[in-house]
Amino acid sequence: MNTIGSAVRVTLFGASHDSRIGCVIDGIPAGTPVDTAKIEADLALRKPVPGIGTPRVEADAPEISGVVNGCTTGAPLMITFANTNTKSSDYEALRKMPRPGHADYPAVCKYGASHDIRGGGMFSGRMTTPLVAAGAVMRGILEPLEITVGSYVSRIGRVEDTAEYAPAALSASRTNSLRAMSEELEGLMREEILAAKADGDSVGGVVRCMGTGLPAGLGEPFFDTLDGEIAKAVFAIPGVKGVMFGAGFAAAASRGSENNDFYRMGGDGAVQTLTNHAGGVLGGMASGQTLDFSVAFKPTPSIARPQQTVNLEERTDAELSVHGRHDPCIANRGAIVVEAMTALVIADLLIRGGYYG
Amino acid sequence: MNTIGSAVRVTLFGASHDSRIGCVIDGIPAGTPVDTAKIEADLALRKPVPGIGTPRVEADAPEISGVVNGCTTGAPLMITFANTNTKSSDYEALRKMPRPGHADYPAVCKYGASHDIRGGGMFSGRMTTPLVAAGAVMRGILEPLEITVGSYVSRIGRVEDTAEYAPAALSASRTNSLRAMSEELEGLMREEILAAKADGDSVGGVVRCMGTGLPAGLGEPFFDTLDGEIAKAVFAIPGVKGVMFGAGFAAAASRGSENNDFYRMGGDGAVQTLTNHAGGVLGGMASGQTLDFSVAFKPTPSIARPQQTVNLEERTDAELSVHGRHDPCIANRGAIVVEAMTALVIADLLIRGGYYG
Amino acid sequence: MNTIGSAVRVTLFGASHDSRIGCVIDGIPAGTPVDTAKIEADLALRKPVPGIGTPRVEADAPEISGVVNGCTTGAPLMITFANTNTKSSDYEALRKMPRPGHADYPAVCKYGASHDIRGGGMFSGRMTTPLVAAGAVMRGILEPLEITVGSYVSRIGRVEDTAEYAPAALSASRTNSLRAMSEELEGLMREEILAAKADGDSVGGVVRCMGTGLPAGLGEPFFDTLDGEIAKAVFAIPGVKGVMFGAGFAAAASRGSENNDFYRMGGDGAVQTLTNHAGGVLGGMASGQTLDFSVAFKPTPSIARPQQTVNLEERTDAELSVHGRHDPCIANRGAIVVEAMTALVIADLLIRGGYYG
Amino acid sequence: MNTIGSAVRVTLFGASHDSRIGCVIDGIPAGTPVDTAKIEADLALRKPVPGIGTPRVEADAPEISGVVNGCTTGAPLMITFANTNTKSSDYEALRKMPRPGHADYPAVCKYGASHDIRGGGMFSGRMTTPLVAAGAVMRGILEPLEITVGSYVSRIGRVEDTAEYAPAALSASRTNSLRAMSEELEGLMREEILAAKADGDSVGGVVRCMGTGLPAGLGEPFFDTLDGEIAKAVFAIPGVKGVMFGAGFAAAASRGSENNDFYRMGGDGAVQTLTNHAGGVLGGMASGQTLDFSVAFKPTPSIARPQQTVNLEERTDAELSVHGRHDPCIANRGAIVVEAMTALVIADLLIRGGYYG
Repeated sequence: MNTIGSAVRVTLFGASHDSRIGCVIDGIPAGTPVDTAKIEADLALRKPVPGIGTPRVEADAPEISGVVNGCTTGAPLMITFANTNTKSSDYEALRKMPRPGHADYPAVCKYGASHDIRGGGMFSGRMTTPLVAAGAVMRGILEPLEITVGSYVSRIGRVEDTAEYAPAALSASRTNSLRAMSEELEGLMREEILAAKADGDSVGGVVRCMGTGLPAGLGEPFFDTLDGEIAKAVFAIPGVKGVMFGAGFAAAASRGSENNDFYRMGGDGAVQTLTNHAGGVLGGMASGQTLDFSVAFKPTPSIARPQQTVNLEERTDAELSVHGRHDPCIANRGAIVVEAMTALVIADLLIRGGYYG
Repeated sequence: MNTIGSAVRVTLFGASHDSRIGCVIDGIPAGTPVDTAKIEADLALRKPVPGIGTPRVEADAPEISGVVNGCTTGAPLMITFANTNTKSSDYEALRKMPRPGHADYPAVCKYGASHDIRGGGMFSGRMTTPLVAAGAVMRGILEPLEITVGSYVSRIGRVEDTAEYAPAALSASRTNSLRAMSEELEGLMREEILAAKADGDSVGGVVRCMGTGLPAGLGEPFFDTLDGEIAKAVFAIPGVKGVMFGAGFAAAASRGSENNDFYRMGGDGAVQTLTNHAGGVLGGMASGQTLDFSVAFKPTPSIARPQQTVNLEERTDAELSVHGRHDPCIANRGAIVVEAMTALVIADLLIRGGYYG
Repeated sequence: MNTIGSAVRVTLFGASHDSRIGCVIDGIPAGTPVDTAKIEADLALRKPVPGIGTPRVEADAPEISGVVNGCTTGAPLMITFANTNTKSSDYEALRKMPRPGHADYPAVCKYGASHDIRGGGMFSGRMTTPLVAAGAVMRGILEPLEITVGSYVSRIGRVEDTAEYAPAALSASRTNSLRAMSEELEGLMREEILAAKADGDSVGGVVRCMGTGLPAGLGEPFFDTLDGEIAKAVFAIPGVKGVMFGAGFAAAASRGSENNDFYRMGGDGAVQTLTNHAGGVLGGMASGQTLDFSVAFKPTPSIARPQQTVNLEERTDAELSVHGRHDPCIANRGAIVVEAMTALVIADLLIRGGYYG
Repeated sequence: MNTIGSAVRVTLFGASHDSRIGCVIDGIPAGTPVDTAKIEADLALRKPVPGIGTPRVEADAPEISGVVNGCTTGAPLMITFANTNTKSSDYEALRKMPRPGHADYPAVCKYGASHDIRGGGMFSGRMTTPLVAAGAVMRGILEPLEITVGSYVSRIGRVEDTAEYAPAALSASRTNSLRAMSEELEGLMREEILAAKADGDSVGGVVRCMGTGLPAGLGEPFFDTLDGEIAKAVFAIPGVKGVMFGAGFAAAASRGSENNDFYRMGGDGAVQTLTNHAGGVLGGMASGQTLDFSVAFKPTPSIARPQQTVNLEERTDAELSVHGRHDPCIANRGAIVVEAMTALVIADLLIRGGYYG
């Protein structure tokens, strides 16, 4: 349902055009610092790109309860955001004419007339705002253990960033709203998005996420694995269509002698691998190497161009042009959400495994 | 941990060389038929390929309790298999010399000297035997709702099957142990595996899985989504490195106008789509179209060729040749496990959503 | 942790002197009516008794999100209350001098200096406000199934109400703030409380709760039983020390021929019992007869009289007089909380068992 | 359902006359010793009293998997018992003529014709055999933390043991099959049971359970409290009708100045209380004093005397004499089950709270 996690649980509430959205975070050990500035820094990376993204801009000022003297008390945290910039009149017609690529049709099948269709209701990308805040809170658990999580956009449409980066370098992507790793790439990606926008269209993208410092063995086999929990968490992000770790689908075309990561004893006595085709996961547990996975985002389904749909009342074919305020690309805004979900999973597994608290 | 599912829960027990492996299945509504012949038919598809796969062949005869007069009683089912064909002496040396690509190293980090390393312990592919049995039991829930789950091997190493098949056609893959869709492909894939084997090597592969009849709306947003639960379940299968639905990573390179699946009203009054780039999932719920996803299996990490590793006791580099009995490819045996995990997830979501029982 | 329920889950947040308290209710089927007037009617029964109870009176006006057109949408509900009438300066000294009978000492052991001791923090009876609201929401699930839950105070200190009442008669207790079944009993109980108050003391009490219309078989053996889930839920209410169903502890002194409830076929073709020593529960499931259980509340631990305690800093004995604003009896205010927890458990088991939604 | 626990989970399977019963225990940290002799010693206390109890005597020899070199490996444990001494023909007639005081009627309402009625199916006291084994395994977690759990029978019918005992003294009850604290009480209780048996009747009883060494703060408020989890676990034992901690229902008749446990600083610097009316629980957490609670068992519902029932097929009144093999009292056999359930809850809360592993 609307709760994720086992030892640390995040329960989401609200909807795109509801008065409030937010989450309750339960299970954070007492005394964990909560730094509002860091939460706001992560929230800033989720905002629409000026001049490209949706003109719906919310203040996204978190109201937090459950923190005393800057730390958790053992009671749950509640983080909430007011929704102020809503235009619900845009949406009512969509109840009978579902938007292609959106949750409208299955949501109406599931919830019937009760479905809150305004702004996509609980299926809106708006719901990722409290998730980013929760992820930022989790960094307070990761930091004392020297665990980092970063990401960047490795593809927007036809523009692909094929370079390899050290995990520490990923912070470069936090300096631009496209989460690109260089000014040049930022420019190319911006052009790709603007070209789609000019056509009344949208583009997809790929986010690559890396984590360092995860203790070897982190994860709970057989089912609550590091990769499985990350995959589940990431598929909850609207628009995600694929997740792969390390070599991913390329591993399927390779041989074991190529794909296996050979061990070497590092100079500092740490066990290392020569390659990281495993993406930092073996047997569902952290391997001790860099966590490394990629996430495919589909193009935003809301496009201005006319699309074929159906009229569910009249049971006829129909045509639809989606108005409202939308992003022509969500992968760049999704990058910080991927980080947040990853931080949530790691924090949960750390506590479950007895590594923290 | 070792339980998956919410309304229907499967709890796994045992280890590769333990006296027994098995699972407890809780939450199946009373009166659900349990057909031993169907369980055995699915188990047969998990067996090693004669002449190619591991010579460790277990009888895999399920002992089932909790069934009276061929039906469940409301009490849990317990399915267990005896392990008889074990050679534990093969493994003890690996505790200090972890096999590349295996769970050995993180498992020893996590569980220390207590880790049962014989045959990979609880990380062995052997653990998928009770999962296949559980999946076959779930078909008893799916069948009265006319829901089907099938799969085939769409790639082994360099051999790729790029054809598109109707879901009903996938049963063709059940006639051969490589789960190929034609005799010709079976031959090519067999050659690819034998070539690797001749080199003391292994190959990876891709399994494509399809499901039909899932009611539009199946899945529990925001987190317990159809795609997220499938992804988590599938990543529990040893060797899986990637999961993507429909167009998957290709969607990231496309535009919304290409990727959106336009709706059409079918002749029978059913809502249809012209394409299925979504792979049957929208907003985390079944879209009403065919469930369609692909799973990447890495090459078997156990290979005869010498590999570089480390000696954890002496903290030095070392070399290792993996003996024991292994498959040069696991994707084909993994196909029925993917189906089983998918059936588990669908059955669980059906009961959670009030569609069954 | 701070979540109760399985199919319907209530997650509590906040603390006695936090800015907000509230809860998130997840899993309520879409289209369930939410009646604010009924929520407020139940909240009114939780208020302190004028002239007897604590002078801390909060407005207890619920702010609800997740309701559109008076019904749930399938998304979670969030109900929150502002805390306005707090005097936190009363409490800081208690961190080192724990109040006898309160959670102070174990809470400081558990959470250390991070424990929010203001007003008892998350251990305050104040936390039952959102639970009463959640229980009132659950009545929206129970009502269409003609399931009722009522209660009354059967004992305050030495005043015991030994009469037997039909479940339908219990609504009489809603007319007075002591939840007594007659004006006479209300008077006697009021005197008992006032006498204790005059002595700077407090008194305990017993709440008896009844439910009708529960379908025979409701409950999930072996562990998630009707009686076990109610017991767990009720022990979460501050001050509860015992729970017994039907004859309860008296059954232990009886013989089977006395205690067994003999079956009779009712005139309307319904299976009835001549007695209800089982309290409406057999084998962990509803028996089809009236649910009937009693809950013991201890006397309010906060009393004005000086008490012996310890000084945790100086590791010495100490004396303490508890100031602040407290009720000399909580059983009467607890009655509606017992009802709420019972409604929560029944609603959860109804949905789990497929009886609703 | 059939799983209890959060960090340590016990999943029960089987039924009274099924081929096997048993449980899977998941979440025990690797390296926890498993001592078969201790398991068998606890199982011996669950056996029927020679000359009084049911002549159905099972060998109760546990088969355990998941243990290597006497310790857990991190994988789940599976403990199973063969059912050999079953006489299923005794039971079939009860499907239409439910036994008063048994689960027959609600079970048939819930599961219909699929209910396994042989020997009570999954509602049989037989199911407590694997629970006692699981409890004995949990002592392996409690012992290194110097936590003990013991119990005795404080009442059988009219014979009540009103003495107060130190927790360490309770082991005296392990020397006799009535779990009485003295030979004299054993004799009186035996007579009480034999007198009922001679009348074709049965008697109830009370078990008092104590635990020492629980760290102050153990328990997870707001809902997963120490007392709430114990209550839920104990109500799963067939025949339990009431649970109270410390003064329990007597607290409801007392004043705060009497009922509060005053703190004193012990000679060894430990915080002590002058009394223990709280039964070792405050705010849902261990108070640091002795855990002390009582459990009411009803008289065995199976009695030889004729009883009134109904014929569910013919919808008429009927008369029934219960044959089969039954105990005239179950409280004494239930004592070790209460201990087992308590050990399970404590072990679970220890791991959840980070006190172990």
